[in-house]
Formats: sequence, structure tokens, C-alpha cells
Amino acid sequence: MNERLKKQIDFILEADKEKEIFRQTHITGFSRCENDAEHAWHMAMMVWLLKEYANEEFDVAKAMMMALIHDVVEIDAGDTYAYDSEALSTQKEREEKAAKRIFGLLPDDQRDELTSLFHEFEEGKTPEAKFARAMDNLQPLLLNDSNDGGDWKSHGVKSSQVFRRQAATEKGSKELWALTEGIINDNINKGNLKKD
Amino acid sequence: MNERLKKQIDFILEADKEKEIFRQTHITGFSRCENDAEHAWHMAMMVWLLKEYANEEFDVAKAMMMALIHDVVEIDAGDTYAYDSEALSTQKEREEKAAKRIFGLLPDDQRDELTSLFHEFEEGKTPEAKFARAMDNLQPLLLNDSNDGGDWKSHGVKSSQVFRRQAATEKGSKELWALTEGIINDNINKGNLKKD
Repeated sequence: MNERLKKQIDFILEADKEKEIFRQTHITGFSRCENDAEHAWHMAMMVWLLKEYANEEFDVAKAMMMALIHDVVEIDAGDTYAYDSEALSTQKEREEKAAKRIFGLLPDDQRDELTSLFHEFEEGKTPEAKFARAMDNLQPLLLNDSNDGGDWKSHGVKSSQVFRRQAATEKGSKELWALTEGIINDNINKGNLKKD
Repeated sequence: MNERLKKQIDFILEADKEKEIFRQTHITGFSRCENDAEHAWHMAMMVWLLKEYANEEFDVAKAMMMALIHDVVEIDAGDTYAYDSEALSTQKEREEKAAKRIFGLLPDDQRDELTSLFHEFEEGKTPEAKFARAMDNLQPLLLNDSNDGGDWKSHGVKSSQVFRRQAATEKGSKELWALTEGIINDNINKGNLKKD
């Protein structure tokens, strides 16, 4: 096998470890939490299915790839729960170190390309990043709503925290932000989210 | 929520069930089998990372979406193991019925679009389908090779079966077919695959 292909295969096999990084969100039916690979698959599919709602034109393949690889760093850095303020304070440093090691398995051009896609996603300024981040918010919101807010209830999450966490969705899609507000308000009314 | 968006969300939540459809292939480390969502995530990422090896130019977003949704039908039809000839004989009928129900949850235009993408993948004639199918072969081959052929050993699979199953990879990529042949021969030499 040539050196370039060997590096690509090494990265592909390393990425497999995302299947063992579990998030706080439960799959539909609430039987277990979902892992990073499953979350990314769902997000990438949603990029395609919901692209008509994006505020701006965007490169669909690029946004899908952003969705697919945005959590690769969690192989080293672990999943940081959206409402864990202590873990959030060290998240950036842990994830930068992970990005260097894991994307560094690839040939140099693809190392640079994926590192750049990862940073673009994190910064959330381009049309692709804005829409991919909207999917990163909407996907667990839909699962949690389908489970009658089970993840919020078990963590005692307040509605202001969810509104703050989900706010970036509006930058990607005004229509999906309206959907998000409706879902949050519905869960407040049902008592699944603590009003504050 | 408008009717169109409601249908799209219904499909997205139905697709979540792929996270509970388990394949015969183990994840790296051999701790457990992988599920359809994880397999599709891995395949879609590979479409992007290995696209330089495709025999023909292709639409990357389209091939990624094919990879992401090619196993949705297994929610109703179940996973059919590549070397189970009895299950293979009824696979097409079971999957067609499933496609009708599950893609039928979507708005009509997207129902038709995804049904067409699914059939295009199955037929394997377009550049996108040929490359996506190559990924569908290569992804479990890489996992199995990383696990010292554990899945072949536990099912007593013969090398001729693997060569036949993997043959379509050559239509998508001559270079990845050479890689495939190398991996299969290596596993024959190690005694992981029965020579016949």
C-alpha cells in the first residue's frame, strides 16, 4: 500500500473510536445514549434533507463533511455536555490538542483541509458552518422532544440554558429557529423544562 | 409546524431506528457489532476522504447522501448478512416494501428523490453509485482486517465468497480494488480466511 493511502486508512480506523464516545442525548425510545458517530450520521443526513431552509446558499458536500467530522476530536477530548460549565472551560484546549494528533494522521493536505473544516465549524461564521451548527443543535433537540424531554428532566435543565444553547440555529435558518422555539415552549408547557 | 416540515421531521425520527439495526461486522477492538447508522457515517466520511481514487468524476454530496441512506430500508427489512444465501433470496422484496413505507414519510418530492437515490445505489451503474458501493465493501473489510479477520473466522467464510462480494469495488476504484485484493490475500496467508 502506498504511504498516502496508508495514512488515510489509519485515520479512517482511528475515527472508528467515535462509535464508543457517548453523548448525553438518548436515542428515540430512550433505551440508551447515542454515540458521536450516530449523531454525526444523523446530522449529515439532516443537512441534505433540510437544506431548503438555510438562510443562505451553501456547499452541501462541505457542510455534510463538517457534520461528519466535527466530533472526531472527542476521541481524545471526550464529550463535553452542553450544560457542564466546568468541562466547557477546558474544552477548547483539549480539543485543539486532539485535532492536532488525530487530523495529523492524514496526509498533510487532508490534515490541513480537515483541521480547517473543524475550525470553520467551531467558528460558525460561513454559510456551511452556520447550517451545520444548526443541525448540531436541532438533532438532539428532536430526539429529546421525541423522548418527552427525558434528557432535560434527568439533568434538571432550565429553559434559559436551552434557549442560549440553541440560539445559534437562527444564524443558519430562521425557519428552523422558529421550529426550535416552538419545541422549547412546548416542553416548558409540558413541565419537561424548568421555566426561569 | 407546516405540513412539509412535519413530514421531514417524521422521516428524520424514523431513521433514528437505524441505530438499533446491528450488522455482522464488529467495530475496531471487536467489543461489539456496529449498527447501520455507524456504518453509514463511516462510509460517507470515506466517500470524501478517498474520492481521489474514484475511476470517474462524481457528485460528492450525492454519493455521500447515498451512503447515509442506503440502509434505511433495514429498519423494516433487517440486516441481510452478505454470506446468508437464504436471506439474500428474499432481500429485494423485503427492502422494496420498506422503501415504500419509510421514504413515503417524506414530502412527495423528497420521497421520490430518496427512493431514486436508493435504487441508483442498488443498481450500481452511475459513478456515484459505483463509488458509494465500493465504500460499502471497503468499510467492513477494513474493520474486519483490523480485527484480524474475526468476523470471517467466526462465520467460517471462504476467500472465494469475499472475492465475489468485494468484486464490485473495482467498478468504483481500480486503486481501492488493488488494496482490497492485498487485504484479502494477506488474510488468506494469515489463515483468517479459508482458501478455496
